[in-house]
Amino acid sequence: MPKIVDHAARRAAIAEALWRVAERDGVEGVTMRAVAREAGWSTGVVTHYFPDMDALTTHSFALVQRAMADRAERAYARAATPRTGVRAALAQALPLDRDRRREATVWFGHLELARRSPAVGAVARDHYDNWRTAVSAQVAAAWPLLPGPRDVADELIALVDGIAVRALAIPRALPRSAQLGMLDRALANIDAAAGLHAGGARTKMGHG
Amino acid sequence: MPKIVDHAARRAAIAEALWRVAERDGVEGVTMRAVAREAGWSTGVVTHYFPDMDALTTHSFALVQRAMADRAERAYARAATPRTGVRAALAQALPLDRDRRREATVWFGHLELARRSPAVGAVARDHYDNWRTAVSAQVAAAWPLLPGPRDVADELIALVDGIAVRALAIPRALPRSAQLGMLDRALANIDAAAGLHAGGARTKMGHG
Repeated sequence: MPKIVDHAARRAAIAEALWRVAERDGVEGVTMRAVAREAGWSTGVVTHYFPDMDALTTHSFALVQRAMADRAERAYARAATPRTGVRAALAQALPLDRDRRREATVWFGHLELARRSPAVGAVARDHYDNWRTAVSAQVAAAWPLLPGPRDVADELIALVDGIAVRALAIPRALPRSAQLGMLDRALANIDAAAGLHAGGARTKMGHG
Repeated sequence: MPKIVDHAARRAAIAEALWRVAERDGVEGVTMRAVAREAGWSTGVVTHYFPDMDALTTHSFALVQRAMADRAERAYARAATPRTGVRAALAQALPLDRDRRREATVWFGHLELARRSPAVGAVARDHYDNWRTAVSAQVAAAWPLLPGPRDVADELIALVDGIAVRALAIPRALPRSAQLGMLDRALANIDAAAGLHAGGARTKMGHG
């Protein structure tokens, strides 16, 4: 009887080997041979699942993307209010602990490849489109009277990406508390802006 | 008579060759041999100036850093007011045109190396320290009554880094107008926050 091989599990194991290589040696250390060695298989097994680096990179990038998006969604769903949900979901994209640090390292390493590979670029584009849609809906729920939730979402996404890039490059410059402090100040500014609009709405209602 | 060689010019030419390789092939394509070929010299000439990749990368990273910082300073100095100067200086870090796009590509590619090389990491740390100091001073000049100019500087720096990362990975998602629109909305929010504080200060003075 032929052996039953769980192909999805093998593909995932190969992607995880790629992440370990990327974290340790940077994206420039990621080759078919290095990934095969890390996974404990021959290069032939890896090329059976992924004919070239582009196919392998696209798959591993999509898995990281999915993990980040799912975790953000769960964090939002668990929160007591939309306002605390927005904070919890965005914090998932910050390199606050070892796991999220590894994930962000792999993410930004792959993002650099998006510029030169259409397939990898498509994963990046979908990620930012979906993230923007999710954050826009969360912002609209948290601050219903604030205009332009999509613009606010764009700014929050840029902020957490910018915090992450700097925190990864210079870990001691932005410890966990500093990263969350920056996020909390940005959210407090939105509270203030929403308060101004709510005040305007109340005044309008008072005049009506 | 021995030939007179301009060593600084050679070092800069080698760094520029590295940038072209990094832009075309990504940081993972940057090797001593690739840089020498791009510069039109032998690998021996390159290793005469830079004994290893770490020395070469640190030098080229420092040159990009200097170029970005100088241009931001000039843009601020040329502006009619501190408020327009803040915008002009921050816009220098956005990939708005071909040159700034190339520069940002090289910058973020190098930043990835900062995590694994102490020498490259030191350049990154100095860059963000200096940038933060410069933007803090500009923010304090533009909005004298606003508290916490260093925190505001941190957020503006994270914002432009986050915009740049996304714009580089997915060029069509964030054209020039969208990048500047995000920056302008963030500055308008600071105007509003500063206006609240100015209102408070005026009220205080009125009571005094």
